[in-house]
Amino acid sequence: MMSMTAIRFRENRLFYLDQRHLPYRELWRECRSLSDGARAIRELRVRGAPLIGVFAGYCICVHLKALPQSKDAFYTKLKKALKFLGATRPTAVNLSWALSRIQAAAARFRQYPLSVVKKAIVREANLIHAEDIALCQMMAKQGVRLINAGEGILTHCNTGFLATSGQGTALAVIYKAHALGKKISVYADETRPLLQGARLTAWELSKKKIPATLICDNAAASLMRQGKIDKVLVGADRIAANGDVANKIGTYGLAVLARQHHIPFYVVAPESTFDLSIASGKAIPIEKRPEDEVLTVLKKVRLAPRGVRAFNEAFDITPAQFITAIVSDKGIIYPPFKKNIKRMIKEIGIGVEGLGRGKSPQPLTPNP
Amino acid sequence: MMSMTAIRFRENRLFYLDQRHLPYRELWRECRSLSDGARAIRELRVRGAPLIGVFAGYCICVHLKALPQSKDAFYTKLKKALKFLGATRPTAVNLSWALSRIQAAAARFRQYPLSVVKKAIVREANLIHAEDIALCQMMAKQGVRLINAGEGILTHCNTGFLATSGQGTALAVIYKAHALGKKISVYADETRPLLQGARLTAWELSKKKIPATLICDNAAASLMRQGKIDKVLVGADRIAANGDVANKIGTYGLAVLARQHHIPFYVVAPESTFDLSIASGKAIPIEKRPEDEVLTVLKKVRLAPRGVRAFNEAFDITPAQFITAIVSDKGIIYPPFKKNIKRMIKEIGIGVEGLGRGKSPQPLTPNP
Repeated sequence: MMSMTAIRFRENRLFYLDQRHLPYRELWRECRSLSDGARAIRELRVRGAPLIGVFAGYCICVHLKALPQSKDAFYTKLKKALKFLGATRPTAVNLSWALSRIQAAAARFRQYPLSVVKKAIVREANLIHAEDIALCQMMAKQGVRLINAGEGILTHCNTGFLATSGQGTALAVIYKAHALGKKISVYADETRPLLQGARLTAWELSKKKIPATLICDNAAASLMRQGKIDKVLVGADRIAANGDVANKIGTYGLAVLARQHHIPFYVVAPESTFDLSIASGKAIPIEKRPEDEVLTVLKKVRLAPRGVRAFNEAFDITPAQFITAIVSDKGIIYPPFKKNIKRMIKEIGIGVEGLGRGKSPQPLTPNP
Repeated sequence: MMSMTAIRFRENRLFYLDQRHLPYRELWRECRSLSDGARAIRELRVRGAPLIGVFAGYCICVHLKALPQSKDAFYTKLKKALKFLGATRPTAVNLSWALSRIQAAAARFRQYPLSVVKKAIVREANLIHAEDIALCQMMAKQGVRLINAGEGILTHCNTGFLATSGQGTALAVIYKAHALGKKISVYADETRPLLQGARLTAWELSKKKIPATLICDNAAASLMRQGKIDKVLVGADRIAANGDVANKIGTYGLAVLARQHHIPFYVVAPESTFDLSIASGKAIPIEKRPEDEVLTVLKKVRLAPRGVRAFNEAFDITPAQFITAIVSDKGIIYPPFKKNIKRMIKEIGIGVEGLGRGKSPQPLTPNP
């Protein structure tokens, strides 16, 4: 299954599927430098909150050969590279989360030769990758308990193997439900402006031979009213300590509509998406992207006449009160979110997965 | 101001602006036959509930020369033509409303020579047209009372001079508010799949030099939450006796979101849009259109891979409970809608505008 992953790292070479060309062409590119990597993230060639984190870790690995040989200069330049990469996209926290882990791994080995430091960085990047794959499996296992046979599931944007390095977040739950023979009906929002639902989610579902129905974003309400949607499952780019969720623009509207129709609204996200340093969604930075993304379709068709302005915030905030539960790899978190998220995130420090915020609690020993 | 209208009828020749090509090209075509007219409506070259009604009346005028010379055959074929045209699009009631008026005009003159009957039909079509222009002015005058200076107004689909034969329904209110110097901020939903907001509303606003911001349909909720939207104004394709409204897909979702954010939600529609023969929205036929409209963008860019299905109901029903008021040419109708609509529609029979359901209450005398 060559295409069931969107990045590959082999012998210190990093390859990625350029998602801008999907579903038309499966074009793999090599990321040869830090600036290559930054461009890939900025231009959404590589996208999806968890995937960006994994990819960024590997970008640093690729960049290692360009760093100075003297230790102090190495650390100075490494820090600069981490900052540069971390600034490519502001909303998803997984990016800074992964980069903090890389930084912490480097810091732990500061007393060792640079060759050891570099190996530690590569090991940390590999660990982030391996963990992300495992987290997807765990989320799927947790989330599938919420899905009953025959249900209609609506999802937004893309949250599958193109958005993570595993099988996905919300889509992984859908894949698992399908694999278990639950005969669900999948509805995918097209997700304007960049159409991740139409281009990527529909492509993933068709690769996996799961029947799906594509809908325009504005049709969700009518489908809910017609009783065709039993659950809404979305991913997340950042979850604040109180359970407020930043995710692709349109998520908040779906949550309000789901509430109106008494439809459970689930957010599926790994621990790397939680940001306990932020009390509520108000403090989450929202990325503004070029107006042309709205004024055109994929730069191929211009929609509005010249001179018209456009609003293009790529994400919105869904207040915790509209969320039925958050499906994490550790379990399903129900309200009160503030208390229950804190309880779960605390557990990470003693968990076997070795996850942490900005540092790996599982100390690596040098492997010379 | 050549382009501030979308149809023209001169010396029994009917011309229309082919709206499929907007905003790229202002292409005028002639409708030379009944089948030309039916195709223009079916393919949305001519669209917008009130405009379709006016256009359909003129289509019959164009068709008169093709009708038989014997009276019985004339009436039989006329009826067939009316039925054929009426079947082109099911949801907007203005189409059958206008055709019923044409039929009633023909019926009233059955005892006269065919030349007189034909003149009566053309007069009725002209009357429908003139009334539609007047109704737009009256709606604008009524609706503008609801708009305060500096407000942010969100609108959906296209409801301006491309959707009516006058200045519009919801957009006419916006034009009036702008003309009165109310300095409103206009937000236009792009309105997938056929992008009437991006292509047509943005084009109209730019023609009128009114600054506007285009948004993806899924961004409305976030803008509301940010306090940027003070009022939502939409048009209608059919209004049932209880105030339920059929309008472009996405309208219902906006209404729910507006309610959640305590934002007034107004429907602007002329009397020709009310269908008192239908008790509630449940009985309004909803047009299903080809899946390719969703799977592509204007047939120019394919979005999803082959084999993916799409949901493409062109309209949805907004239950009356989500509507703050209906702005009609006669006045602003507040709840309870059932009672207040009935009261207003009754007035038509004695009104000076000469409107009626399927017949003109203002008898025309033959004009030999």
